[in-house]
Amino acid sequence: MKLIRVDMTNRKIDVKDIPQDYRMLGGRGLTSTMINNEVPAGCHPLGPQNKLVFSPGLLTGTPLINTSRLSVGAKSPLTGGIKESNVGGTVAYALARLGIGAVVIEGKAPVDSYYSLVIDDDGSAELIDARDVKGMRTYALVEKLAAAYGEPYSITCIGPAGDFQLSSASIQTTDLDGRPCRAAGRGGLGAVMGAKGLKAMIVSRKGKTPDPLASPEAFKTASRAYADAVKADEFSGEILPQLGTACLVEAINAAGAFPTRNARDGQFEGVEKISGEALAERIKARGGKTTHKGCAQCIIDCSNEFVDQDGRYVTSSLEYETIWSMGGMIGNDDLDSIARLDFLCDDIGLDTMSTGVAIAVAMDAGYRSFGDAAAAIEMVESVAEGTPMGRIIGSGPDVVGQCFGHDRVPTVKGQSIAAYDPRAIQGMAVTYSTTPMGGDHTAGWVVDQNLEDFGGTINPLGTEGQVEASRDTQIHMAAVDSVGICDFAQSGLAAEGGLENVCKMVSAKLGHPFGKADWTDLGTRVLKAEREFNRKAGFSSADDRLPEMFYKEPLPPHNTVVMFSDEEMDTTFDF
Amino acid sequence: MKLIRVDMTNRKIDVKDIPQDYRMLGGRGLTSTMINNEVPAGCHPLGPQNKLVFSPGLLTGTPLINTSRLSVGAKSPLTGGIKESNVGGTVAYALARLGIGAVVIEGKAPVDSYYSLVIDDDGSAELIDARDVKGMRTYALVEKLAAAYGEPYSITCIGPAGDFQLSSASIQTTDLDGRPCRAAGRGGLGAVMGAKGLKAMIVSRKGKTPDPLASPEAFKTASRAYADAVKADEFSGEILPQLGTACLVEAINAAGAFPTRNARDGQFEGVEKISGEALAERIKARGGKTTHKGCAQCIIDCSNEFVDQDGRYVTSSLEYETIWSMGGMIGNDDLDSIARLDFLCDDIGLDTMSTGVAIAVAMDAGYRSFGDAAAAIEMVESVAEGTPMGRIIGSGPDVVGQCFGHDRVPTVKGQSIAAYDPRAIQGMAVTYSTTPMGGDHTAGWVVDQNLEDFGGTINPLGTEGQVEASRDTQIHMAAVDSVGICDFAQSGLAAEGGLENVCKMVSAKLGHPFGKADWTDLGTRVLKAEREFNRKAGFSSADDRLPEMFYKEPLPPHNTVVMFSDEEMDTTFDF
Repeated sequence: MKLIRVDMTNRKIDVKDIPQDYRMLGGRGLTSTMINNEVPAGCHPLGPQNKLVFSPGLLTGTPLINTSRLSVGAKSPLTGGIKESNVGGTVAYALARLGIGAVVIEGKAPVDSYYSLVIDDDGSAELIDARDVKGMRTYALVEKLAAAYGEPYSITCIGPAGDFQLSSASIQTTDLDGRPCRAAGRGGLGAVMGAKGLKAMIVSRKGKTPDPLASPEAFKTASRAYADAVKADEFSGEILPQLGTACLVEAINAAGAFPTRNARDGQFEGVEKISGEALAERIKARGGKTTHKGCAQCIIDCSNEFVDQDGRYVTSSLEYETIWSMGGMIGNDDLDSIARLDFLCDDIGLDTMSTGVAIAVAMDAGYRSFGDAAAAIEMVESVAEGTPMGRIIGSGPDVVGQCFGHDRVPTVKGQSIAAYDPRAIQGMAVTYSTTPMGGDHTAGWVVDQNLEDFGGTINPLGTEGQVEASRDTQIHMAAVDSVGICDFAQSGLAAEGGLENVCKMVSAKLGHPFGKADWTDLGTRVLKAEREFNRKAGFSSADDRLPEMFYKEPLPPHNTVVMFSDEEMDTTFDF
Repeated sequence: MKLIRVDMTNRKIDVKDIPQDYRMLGGRGLTSTMINNEVPAGCHPLGPQNKLVFSPGLLTGTPLINTSRLSVGAKSPLTGGIKESNVGGTVAYALARLGIGAVVIEGKAPVDSYYSLVIDDDGSAELIDARDVKGMRTYALVEKLAAAYGEPYSITCIGPAGDFQLSSASIQTTDLDGRPCRAAGRGGLGAVMGAKGLKAMIVSRKGKTPDPLASPEAFKTASRAYADAVKADEFSGEILPQLGTACLVEAINAAGAFPTRNARDGQFEGVEKISGEALAERIKARGGKTTHKGCAQCIIDCSNEFVDQDGRYVTSSLEYETIWSMGGMIGNDDLDSIARLDFLCDDIGLDTMSTGVAIAVAMDAGYRSFGDAAAAIEMVESVAEGTPMGRIIGSGPDVVGQCFGHDRVPTVKGQSIAAYDPRAIQGMAVTYSTTPMGGDHTAGWVVDQNLEDFGGTINPLGTEGQVEASRDTQIHMAAVDSVGICDFAQSGLAAEGGLENVCKMVSAKLGHPFGKADWTDLGTRVLKAEREFNRKAGFSSADDRLPEMFYKEPLPPHNTVVMFSDEEMDTTFDF
């Protein structure tokens, strides 16, 4: 496997074999280890000392299904800590099929220059002038690049928000239809890409030199069993293809954990208008797609294509977290505007979650009213225009809170929480507080272990068992994000013998034994590297806390607050 | 001495004798101890759990000259850490003459209410409705209040920036002429006052029940000796009355330590137009006042009154730090616009330093050009208007950097450095980095120990002796800020037997022995309390660092960078 280092300061590209100590890492394991090893923790996230690392998962490019995750790592301009944000689409698979284990963007291009990086069939890499597309939105950009390149290329890029180096800027990447609708949204890594002076990474999808497997037959057996388990599971085999992640809307709202109007309520009265069922119904009635394949090697097809009344494309894929952030969180029950906001965020290159929460904080502070979808659209559009208000919104909820003198800002380490209120699902309080990523749900989603409907056995309103659940899930997810398995294909891991199967595949790929203890060890090592970086960057246990509002304001309808003591919280990671 | 607690949540006022353990503290010693003891370090600075403490120095209200300093303490919305900002004028003396040791503003007034606090001749306190003056600028406000109250009252208040709860909002207070031109500028304490729902504190200047002295005769002897020393000193007896603090402009520029155009240069080519001499000349030519008494009990008269071409009042007092922040730092060599910007900041209730640096960062990021004074005035005016751009500027340099995607932001712990570039006076690097206050010069001004012209013996471009100098000065200043002596009257302390004199006065006031060791002990205890609060709030040694630019970019003309290792920096406070 190759490691490509791109020195933007001097526009020099170095391609080498991946060093031995990075060899058995992939995805988040590789990005977080490299950031911790190579980036001075005290550096400015937008300065030349930060690095932006792209790495496919360890199992990406193999025959295993649903492994098309790309990890992107850097010091985050949003949190000031380490960040791994991962994304599907086609790029990770394309890189892996070219035998590329990581692309590292270093330094900073000179003022007034701007580049795209082209990685071709043979794995060669070149920087091309991109000054003409600086400021361009992502849909127009990929159209232009596709026209220029003709052949199938995967395009990973930033929009105007990244060009402006705003802290909520995402890195967008193309799906199987060539649309830039997949986002490495969290942590503002699009701003780091913009600061480097890199508009896009254009990767050939015609690579044929993936990392060979040490034991192809053993791999095949295990990967088939894994795929069968994903197909057989009700959630990944039936519900997700039909409703997509929007299936969660009703369930989380029913649990009283759907943060509404900047987390003043736990249930949204307009929930029926924005539920998974409502979404599927509308899409079907208009001739869109409720079942859609977004990512390479996917067998779930949880994506969708939302269309307008005339059947014209609006956005893909409309996901649960966005329906929340642009729906309930801002008091908006209009699916069409939610879809439009989702598209705009992809087009401008913005994290839908941070941006929705930023709008929610602004509305809570009195700037426009909750439920005013037109105002929300105007705010998001203004980010692309670079107006002062757009810059405030694009900088995330903390900056909105500071600029509007507002103390109800639902962030941890500067990053907004997700669509599960920690007062109604206490386990999420632990994850939001302690993950090195800042407020984040994917780092340790314990919702299923909390809610009875999902088979959960933990009392969501109590603290018992929550710290353990979050800790174990965070360790597990750090390993999942390293091998590159899609979160929605985790049913394969949860099935009988699922983890053994994955361990067998890792072993069959690398050619040395890899068991369950190694899996836990991998996840633990990744978390340790991330926590070490954050400690060097100035984080302490005092940063592993939710904001005051979650401890002080009881959330209807359960009227509970977060109940963990600081001491309990600090037992999460005793390593 | 009395302690007044004002519960804004329930609009209840409690007046009690000051508790014994707070009894021997005053000023910063009292505010920092109370904040550390009573405010949960993790609370939101604009939330109900924060407290805003006003306390006159321990020697304020006594016959000692130049002791009219008021300390204001809280958790800062700008730094997220503890803050003490002190200010002159008449309020500290007024409070002390009423026998009031501290006023503590607690809780948070209900939404849509707004109050002023009136403290009358007899020391009684009352909240009055202030909804009609919310948003009002400070000069108009004090005029209105003076008309309503008739009698001599000292008025401490916030302007629109504080009403908006912006992180660079100051607390302004009236000088001897009743103008709100004295600022507790740093750390955004005006935003805390606004968050509490308090527009103004109106204090009778007719109090006649100051804390009695235990040994009046001993006090008188020592205080006379102190005053004689201040008069006899060349700096406080001659230079300051003639040129004010602006005398520093030429000297610091000559040392190559005058941060110019967002600290890209150490010397400003327009320095002669904004020097102390140029200022005095212009004021004299127009019939203003170069020598002016601003604060109660002052014998130095370092203040000035800047007037326009027609002799009309523009501002008072135009100080060195503002001439820098609104002059060299933004590339502006026009004294009239600097004076106008100074007035606007006082009138809107903004820290001139944070605001000037915020403008400098915006200009450095390409928003308007360096030297464009009209643009600077427009930016400051926009803060009062509450426009998005105004909110960005009013939130300080870090928010400007974030909104404009700019990595050259000269702040420490979120607060801008002052008018001494740490690359050319290395000792200031230690103070900026390690003071619990964030980038701050008064906490440990070692310029005099660095520059030969000031009698300094330390090499300003070297590291030797700098840590010790900063540490000793920081301890000393924590004590100075506790007894309430004006920084410019420190010549009395520096004189032969000066410290003994001050210790004698503390002893004569309190009625128990107080020696040099107690002085050092007092300063150390204050710093320990402040550092303890910051540690609880999440600060670690990683926060005791300057931004990357000072370590990486050599500053002309000396072309030096900050040279301390992290380990050296961390030896500053080994307690």
